[in-house]
Amino acid sequence: MRGKFITIEGTEGVGKTTNIAFIKQWLDDNGISFINTREPGGTPLAEEIRQVLLSNRDEKVCSKAELLMMFAGRAQHIDQVIEPQLAQGNWVLCDRFTDATYAYQGAGREMGDDLIKDLETMVQGDMRPDLTLILDVPVELGLERAGKRSEPDRFELEKTDFFNRVRHAYLSIATNNPQRYKIIDASQALEHVQLQIADTLNSFLQKDHNG
Amino acid sequence: MRGKFITIEGTEGVGKTTNIAFIKQWLDDNGISFINTREPGGTPLAEEIRQVLLSNRDEKVCSKAELLMMFAGRAQHIDQVIEPQLAQGNWVLCDRFTDATYAYQGAGREMGDDLIKDLETMVQGDMRPDLTLILDVPVELGLERAGKRSEPDRFELEKTDFFNRVRHAYLSIATNNPQRYKIIDASQALEHVQLQIADTLNSFLQKDHNG
Repeated sequence: MRGKFITIEGTEGVGKTTNIAFIKQWLDDNGISFINTREPGGTPLAEEIRQVLLSNRDEKVCSKAELLMMFAGRAQHIDQVIEPQLAQGNWVLCDRFTDATYAYQGAGREMGDDLIKDLETMVQGDMRPDLTLILDVPVELGLERAGKRSEPDRFELEKTDFFNRVRHAYLSIATNNPQRYKIIDASQALEHVQLQIADTLNSFLQKDHNG
Repeated sequence: MRGKFITIEGTEGVGKTTNIAFIKQWLDDNGISFINTREPGGTPLAEEIRQVLLSNRDEKVCSKAELLMMFAGRAQHIDQVIEPQLAQGNWVLCDRFTDATYAYQGAGREMGDDLIKDLETMVQGDMRPDLTLILDVPVELGLERAGKRSEPDRFELEKTDFFNRVRHAYLSIATNNPQRYKIIDASQALEHVQLQIADTLNSFLQKDHNG
């Protein structure tokens, strides 16, 4: 049986790392074999593209170049990792995927959705995640949390307006497709956040067993 | 007045470097201000993509990832270098451009032309080179010449069949649009090759002055 493809999305400082660790524990507890990967990245080549994408640089990066690099890495990641793993029956847990492109490039960079839709079809056909958790916190809170970490990369240097557009794009994507997306209120205490995540995963697994 | 965009194409070992030096001399002799650039590459970011593209690696590079990286670098190159230079009235002499993508990825990798056409429109709109010189030699002769140089990159390691497909794609592109393309028989003695090139450039310049 084909594995399930689960993606985790959210803006800066929403707690993706901590909550991905929690989800990995849940998968282990349920005896599900899985791999944990990320975008941009996920293969040695795609990680090289990630470096090119995230490096701070004097050269202005044109939006189309950024978008095409994102999908280049994604094509490689799907071809070399995601599809083979799913086909072998393993679940794939991925830190960001195409929803991030709609949110960051489409809304954040104000490129709109049309080019992204075309590239999504070109690279993915009709392959989509089975479940997407969107970790949501108000932008200021997220940036405050993220600011306490390491040096900001090229995206983290963007302004609050940019992240507000990203956040609202995520919320709007989720609202338009409640079957696949679950918004997790990540501004609460960690134990409450993880209760929401566990509930979501348990009912996803239940539905999978029944359906 | 907008500058002219001239591209030089050809498979391995056709003598692009030598003949580009000759064209630069011709441009200088005619008092034309120009820049000389190349693809993949042409900006610091696009040169990083070139490195990722050309490196030999154990990981199999999926054709779509390769194609999207090519167009990512091209989008950046057009945005940061080619368009601004042409707009300032400088000519742009470019070692390879989108015809190489049709030849190498479309024909060499047997991806076909449809995806490339879509990406060309996405990245270039209706922007095309004004003149394209295709330096043509039989594949065996070219590979023999190229083999005498440095270590082969990821493309140069391909087999003769691959390069035969690339060569015939170039010839077919040129035959279908003799207005823009000029095939230069580069198997002849260098002075004859350069006579052909000078003739082509002189009549291009003549037409430009008249039209």
